[in-house]
Amino acid sequence: MSFYGGVEGGGTQTSAVILNERGEELAWAYGGCSNAYQVGLDEATDTINSIVEEAKKKAGIPAEQCLKTLGLCLSGAQESMVNKFNEKYPKLSNSIVIHNDTLGSLATVCKGGGIVLIAGTGSNCIYGSEDGKVTRCGGWGPFMGDEGGAWWISHRAIKYLFDDDDNLNQSPAKTDAVRKLMHEYFKVIDNDGMLDHFYTNASKTFFAGFTKLLAEAATNGDDSLCKLVFAEAGRDQAKHILAVLPAVSNDLLESHDGLQIICVGSVWKSWPLLKDSFVSCLKHESKRKISAITLLRPAKSSAIGAALLGSKDCAEVIEMDLTNNSTLLHKQAL
Amino acid sequence: MSFYGGVEGGGTQTSAVILNERGEELAWAYGGCSNAYQVGLDEATDTINSIVEEAKKKAGIPAEQCLKTLGLCLSGAQESMVNKFNEKYPKLSNSIVIHNDTLGSLATVCKGGGIVLIAGTGSNCIYGSEDGKVTRCGGWGPFMGDEGGAWWISHRAIKYLFDDDDNLNQSPAKTDAVRKLMHEYFKVIDNDGMLDHFYTNASKTFFAGFTKLLAEAATNGDDSLCKLVFAEAGRDQAKHILAVLPAVSNDLLESHDGLQIICVGSVWKSWPLLKDSFVSCLKHESKRKISAITLLRPAKSSAIGAALLGSKDCAEVIEMDLTNNSTLLHKQAL
Repeated sequence: MSFYGGVEGGGTQTSAVILNERGEELAWAYGGCSNAYQVGLDEATDTINSIVEEAKKKAGIPAEQCLKTLGLCLSGAQESMVNKFNEKYPKLSNSIVIHNDTLGSLATVCKGGGIVLIAGTGSNCIYGSEDGKVTRCGGWGPFMGDEGGAWWISHRAIKYLFDDDDNLNQSPAKTDAVRKLMHEYFKVIDNDGMLDHFYTNASKTFFAGFTKLLAEAATNGDDSLCKLVFAEAGRDQAKHILAVLPAVSNDLLESHDGLQIICVGSVWKSWPLLKDSFVSCLKHESKRKISAITLLRPAKSSAIGAALLGSKDCAEVIEMDLTNNSTLLHKQAL
Repeated sequence: MSFYGGVEGGGTQTSAVILNERGEELAWAYGGCSNAYQVGLDEATDTINSIVEEAKKKAGIPAEQCLKTLGLCLSGAQESMVNKFNEKYPKLSNSIVIHNDTLGSLATVCKGGGIVLIAGTGSNCIYGSEDGKVTRCGGWGPFMGDEGGAWWISHRAIKYLFDDDDNLNQSPAKTDAVRKLMHEYFKVIDNDGMLDHFYTNASKTFFAGFTKLLAEAATNGDDSLCKLVFAEAGRDQAKHILAVLPAVSNDLLESHDGLQIICVGSVWKSWPLLKDSFVSCLKHESKRKISAITLLRPAKSSAIGAALLGSKDCAEVIEMDLTNNSTLLHKQAL
């Protein structure tokens, strides 16, 4: 019996799965952050190794038995990690392949090509073609982009407030609701109090978490500024699609379901707030005609896709029906 | 004989001066970063104390003799630092007052009110009125602004390049020169290499230092994108002036020299690159008529102004002629 490992690694959680050749999920294991840019290459490698070993153990695989293949789909993927594994954990798997986290989501949900659009803490978009070529846009982190991600949404709302208070730029809508929520969430009484969250206690994840309150204020409170920020996010997410569109095959664009977009990350829970500007941007700003769009939400961890990619790269075949790996978020003709 | 201390504290260097009541500079001493948001309140307090003690020693003041007043003008100024001094170093000075770094520059250069516009690593603007009221705009750090500062200029140039490469937004001018400089300065061979500078080795000061190369490419290389980024910086700097303008007194606006703007920070070395957009913004976007502008560059450390402010707040008078504390950068009718 051969075993195939797959790992989905992110900034807050890492998941590992062990599959057999029939695509059955034998065991899962979980751990913390494995983004090499956040914790360093050594710690990321150690974390992944221990989670995979735990999953192997749960699956009843003897410690000394190598996996046939191991696929890693990681945020902050670094090619040099393969060398690090060969050096530190040569017995973990016969082969190790590493891909960006977006590719894992794609392989989990569809067999052919497609677009993955991540809007979690950060944002990122890739188009993976049927023959494995990858075109990407974004994914540079909050420092250089992440437009449409939760960190960016939080930042945008607070920036409108700061600039308005400073008389530097007038906010396009009243800032009262955002101010009230900012004071509550960050436990501050004025803008100066926020400096602590910009410097000393700057946590990307905590800052991004403010987006949840903004979504509620937009939805239940009908707040104009919060709604506007989500509309901007929707448009920027769609612009990521347009950025990779020149690479998309005609077959995919003209297929019955139109352009398949796999939507990953918690910002998509606010789809009703993003929808109008997202659809409008694809409709009016695209240079190529998009007949229809189908937005899918993954229902399974992309560790599955990572395992499939790992085996595929070694010409191994795992049989798996992917239909249950996603749910429909939205479908419409453009 | 009474002695008055003044400290200018920044993100990279801290300077202290000791004055006597005739405004004579008795001694100077220097040290590292004293921004409490960067190094914490305790370390910032310790650093300042040891530099002031060193200056006292150089001035021949016995260690046990208290300063009459001590004025601190710090980037990242925190009121709680006064308590920290009273707790840890109660014998340093009879009174301690703390202000933002911008106010120190103002007090160094002019006796009445005026505007200070900082464009160093970060940016910040304050208007200090004749009677000591302060109106500010910006100064929130790169996380939430710093438009027109060196970090922002570096970031803007690189962002144009990244977005153009990603096909997310087309750059308004060719990115070749910025790419070449980015590869040289950051020692990378592609955009992926920059991730290290966004995460693990992110140094605000080093990143801001890239602006010097952009200035050279704009000046000697006549590069359009570099010129554009500086033009944007000039406009954003002027927008900081407009932001505080509603608070400026008529006396100041109608005075012979017009609006006095004290320009602090190394970005002002590139004044020819900033000038057109800066002047144009003040001319065309202001709601109040500005008859003329006088831009002054401080010729002395704002530790001088800090000492003057410290004494003034305690109704002590130091006699000092301020004319030699600045040089003229630019003067014109609008």
